Amino acid sequence: MQPQHTGTLHLIPVGLSEAPIDSWLPIAAQQQAAGLSNYIAENAKTARAFLKLLTLERPIQEIDIQTLTAKTDDQTIRQWLAPLKNHQSIGLVSEAGCPAVADPGARVVALAHDMGATVKPWTGPSSIVLGLMASGLDGQRFTFHGYAPVKPDERAKQLKQWEQLSARLSQTQILIETPYRNAAMFDSLLQTLNPKTRLCVACDVTGPNEWLRTRTVASWKNSPQPDLVGKPTLFLFQA
Amino acid sequence: MQPQHTGTLHLIPVGLSEAPIDSWLPIAAQQQAAGLSNYIAENAKTARAFLKLLTLERPIQEIDIQTLTAKTDDQTIRQWLAPLKNHQSIGLVSEAGCPAVADPGARVVALAHDMGATVKPWTGPSSIVLGLMASGLDGQRFTFHGYAPVKPDERAKQLKQWEQLSARLSQTQILIETPYRNAAMFDSLLQTLNPKTRLCVACDVTGPNEWLRTRTVASWKNSPQPDLVGKPTLFLFQA
Repeated sequence: MQPQHTGTLHLIPVGLSEAPIDSWLPIAAQQQAAGLSNYIAENAKTARAFLKLLTLERPIQEIDIQTLTAKTDDQTIRQWLAPLKNHQSIGLVSEAGCPAVADPGARVVALAHDMGATVKPWTGPSSIVLGLMASGLDGQRFTFHGYAPVKPDERAKQLKQWEQLSARLSQTQILIETPYRNAAMFDSLLQTLNPKTRLCVACDVTGPNEWLRTRTVASWKNSPQPDLVGKPTLFLFQA
Repeated sequence: MQPQHTGTLHLIPVGLSEAPIDSWLPIAAQQQAAGLSNYIAENAKTARAFLKLLTLERPIQEIDIQTLTAKTDDQTIRQWLAPLKNHQSIGLVSEAGCPAVADPGARVVALAHDMGATVKPWTGPSSIVLGLMASGLDGQRFTFHGYAPVKPDERAKQLKQWEQLSARLSQTQILIETPYRNAAMFDSLLQTLNPKTRLCVACDVTGPNEWLRTRTVASWKNSPQPDLVGKPTLFLFQA
C-alpha cells in the first residue's frame, strides 16, 4: 500500500514460561528475530536469554541491546531508532509476552510511527489472549485493566465497579497481579464479587504447570483453593 | 496441579490471511492440530482449508467437523464434547484468528469447564493483539468493543462515549467493522473524534498487504485516505 522508505521495527514476542520456543513462536518470527543486530528491550538479561534460544546469524556479543525503562526519554529512544532511517531494522522485545502490551514498549512504537517507519507485529504468546480463550467468558467484549489497587478498601471498591461494568456491558474484565500478591488478590475476588459471577484463574500459562479453571465465585468458595503463590497468574471475571 | 481425568479441548488459532502457516502458528500447535480427529468449527469450510495446511495424521475425510452457530443449543454441544470423557481430545477453531475471542466459541469452552475438562489454549494470531502491539497506543489498559452501532447518530454517540472513557481511564479503545463498511467507519471516526485523539488503522494484519498507521485525527484529515474497502480492518484509538 506504501513504498518502504525506512527499515522496519519488528515487534517480537518472547516466552511467558520455560516452554520450548517451538510451542509459542512461529518459525518465521524466530528467523526474523535471529537476523536482527539491534534490539530495544525491557530487560537486557531476559532479552539475551531469548536470543540464546535462536539460531543467531552473528555472535550474541555483536547484537546491540538498549534497555528501555519508564525513565528513558523520547530523545534517547529517537537515537536508538535512527538506524531505521538507513533502512536498518530493529527488534523490540518485552520481558515476557508481546511487546507494547502490558509493558512500557508502546512509546517506542509511537515514536517509530512519528518517523514514518514500518512497524511489523509478529504473532506470539499473550497471557491476556490465551487466558481469555481458555476462560469460556465472553470474548466478544472485554477490558484489560492491568493491576487493581493494592489497598483493600480501594481494591474492593474498584472490583465492584468492574463487576457492575461487566454486567451492564456484557464485558469480561481482565486483571493481573504480581506473583507474591496472587493469593491475596484471589481472596479479595472471592470476598468482593457476586456469588454468581464467573471467575477464571489462569496460572503459569504456556508453562509446565499451566492451570486454567473457570467457576462461579460460589463454587470457588466450595473448592480446594489453588496454590498461586509465586506463579504468574491472570484473573478474568464476568458478572 | 490436578490429575488429568479427561481429554483436552485444544483451542487452535487459524490464519487471518493467506500468509504461510509458519509465519503465524508455532510448530507444536501445528503438530497438535494435525493429530486431532474431532473438531468443532465456526465454519467447516474454512476449518478444512486450515487442516489442508497441516501434515495430517489421517485422511481429512476421517476428521469429524461439527459446525457451531449462535443457534446451536447447549445439549448438542455437550454431545460433541462427550468424547472428552473417554480421554479423547477435541479441537476448537474459529473462522479466523483465536477461537473464543470475538467469535461464538466461548460457549463451547464454558461447557468444557462445566465437565471438568482440561482446556489448552495455543498461541496464534489475534488481530486485536497484533493491532494493539503495532499501534503505539496504551497497551497497559484497553477495551475491545466488537462492533460499533450501524446507525449514524447512535454510532457517533457511542464513539464519543468511548473517547471520553479513553481519556478518563487512559485506555485504548478497539473496534472492528465488516469489510464493506470500513470506509464509512473511518469517516465516522474522523468526523466524531477530537482532532488530537490518536487513531490507528490496522488493515490486512499478517497478510501480504498488511498496513498499519497511527496518526492524530487532525493528521489523518490532511493525509491521503487509505483504501480500506473489502479489507479486514481493526480501528484503535486513544484520547
